[in-house]
Amino acid sequence: MKIHPMWEAYPELQSELIQTIELIDSRIHLRNKSIEHALVDMLNTGGKLVRPAYTLLFSTFGEEHDPNRARAFAAAIEVLHMATLIHDDIIDDSPKRRGQHSIQSRYGKDIAVYAGDYLFTVSFKLIADYSNSMKQMQINTKGMEKILMGEIDQMHLRYNQKITIRNYLTQISGKTAQLFALSCYSGALESGQTERFARNCYYIGSHIGMAFQIKDDILDYTQTTDGFGKPVLEDVRQGIYSAPLIYAMHKKNAPFKELLEKKDQLTKKETQTIQQFVIHSGGLDEAKRLAEKYTDKALKRIDQLPDSSEKEMIRNLTLSLLDRTI
Amino acid sequence: MKIHPMWEAYPELQSELIQTIELIDSRIHLRNKSIEHALVDMLNTGGKLVRPAYTLLFSTFGEEHDPNRARAFAAAIEVLHMATLIHDDIIDDSPKRRGQHSIQSRYGKDIAVYAGDYLFTVSFKLIADYSNSMKQMQINTKGMEKILMGEIDQMHLRYNQKITIRNYLTQISGKTAQLFALSCYSGALESGQTERFARNCYYIGSHIGMAFQIKDDILDYTQTTDGFGKPVLEDVRQGIYSAPLIYAMHKKNAPFKELLEKKDQLTKKETQTIQQFVIHSGGLDEAKRLAEKYTDKALKRIDQLPDSSEKEMIRNLTLSLLDRTI
Repeated sequence: MKIHPMWEAYPELQSELIQTIELIDSRIHLRNKSIEHALVDMLNTGGKLVRPAYTLLFSTFGEEHDPNRARAFAAAIEVLHMATLIHDDIIDDSPKRRGQHSIQSRYGKDIAVYAGDYLFTVSFKLIADYSNSMKQMQINTKGMEKILMGEIDQMHLRYNQKITIRNYLTQISGKTAQLFALSCYSGALESGQTERFARNCYYIGSHIGMAFQIKDDILDYTQTTDGFGKPVLEDVRQGIYSAPLIYAMHKKNAPFKELLEKKDQLTKKETQTIQQFVIHSGGLDEAKRLAEKYTDKALKRIDQLPDSSEKEMIRNLTLSLLDRTI
Repeated sequence: MKIHPMWEAYPELQSELIQTIELIDSRIHLRNKSIEHALVDMLNTGGKLVRPAYTLLFSTFGEEHDPNRARAFAAAIEVLHMATLIHDDIIDDSPKRRGQHSIQSRYGKDIAVYAGDYLFTVSFKLIADYSNSMKQMQINTKGMEKILMGEIDQMHLRYNQKITIRNYLTQISGKTAQLFALSCYSGALESGQTERFARNCYYIGSHIGMAFQIKDDILDYTQTTDGFGKPVLEDVRQGIYSAPLIYAMHKKNAPFKELLEKKDQLTKKETQTIQQFVIHSGGLDEAKRLAEKYTDKALKRIDQLPDSSEKEMIRNLTLSLLDRTI
């Protein structure tokens, strides 16, 4: 079992994450072995595992911490994430995911729809099997519900050139930030921490998630080619306009508004024109400042956590996500 | 609030079902009101509500019956069913559902994917909010997981002319029968009945579900036009071969094997040729006997239930499903 090399610096957490992946692996059972293998392949190929890592780290602050339960909640978060990725790939008609063929390109959208659905049930069942109270169960399902509400709410601004930074922030808070918030919150609650403490962790996760998504969107513009994953600026072709582009769109004489109207018919050269303008107009730098702002907000709240080696890891991980290049 | 007229004969159950629908309605909240309305429209337009009806009926056999909880479980089953219907429509590119435009034809497959996902979380959250034990929660999530496993397992026999009745039975037991089984089982457990009693209800539900699906597949061949719903024999074009066709395929000199190879390119006239042969070869009659066999199995077990007016309703409902014409 191999996981992303970024965890080599944290051997204990690395070992916990490996056990989390093994737990997920042990919960995926299908009579159709070829699809089972595809799901397990996806699990084993290079997801960063940032979300379950936060769950594990935040589960160390209370007195009732149970490593098995913490790993189960971390696993549930990662499986929910996988489910949404598989469904995202259907929507984007995306041929690749994590350097592998996406489930939908290998098996068609029918299998991909059901494979994602199946993973939703795997995620819920993990929580049901390991929660020790209905309250915990309710909190987790409520968090999951909010994430899916966010997914839907983000759809209706596609291809809308009037989108504002505020709209964008609402969108990414719905999907990305909610899942990070749930990661941290459910970890803290798992360990028996108070609702008040867990609430703080929720906000930490939310800020981290905002910074993570903005950074992701920045990387779309700074990477000239994307070794694996989806093609550069694919989001723009799909009508998903993120912070760097939105800042650039609001510059005087932005030269690409007509180009955007070509929607998914944009050529490679045209996306490069857009990319260059976003970089040279300063849109990218403004987006970087926005990501830094959210990282700072997270760090301020992280400072209030009780001192521990995990607190340091949370701080370092959060900073390293801002500096990452992939 | 109007529900299917078939429930007028059972005023009490009708009232319970209306309250179940109202409960679902109250749990669907989206910032995007147009999608929220589409989901509520779907809820209000003519689903038969057979699955939640069984949950409500089977919840009357124990001492700990709580009407609010029973309705919540019935609601969870119906919402899960709605979620799978929305996702089925994506796979079939189906323009209509219950006489209305399907979610995917109104809003596109992206919204339909997420709308279905959202309903999954609504379903799980209903169970989490109303279960009074983790055991109950686990049983429900396990049932749901099995249903999705069944959805996936049914896919790989599409367009396979070697499909046997046994394959077909495995397929429909995965999806349809599991959900009916869960309906009955979770109702019985809700009321505080023993695991042994609930197990019997599980098998009753499973047999009812088998008969229900076979009957559905028979109706595909006996209806010359289908007022709403999907076009006649659409399943055949989609490569889903059901009991009447499978029986007919195994007749000597079945004249349509080459036609089937045209897959979704079958013309209306060609599907009529297939339909006529299925009827005249006796394939349809064999399928009817198969449905009767499962109904009989269900009735034998229903007879063992303690006498009550609900037992009579379960018996009548099960018989009427076999005789239905739509």
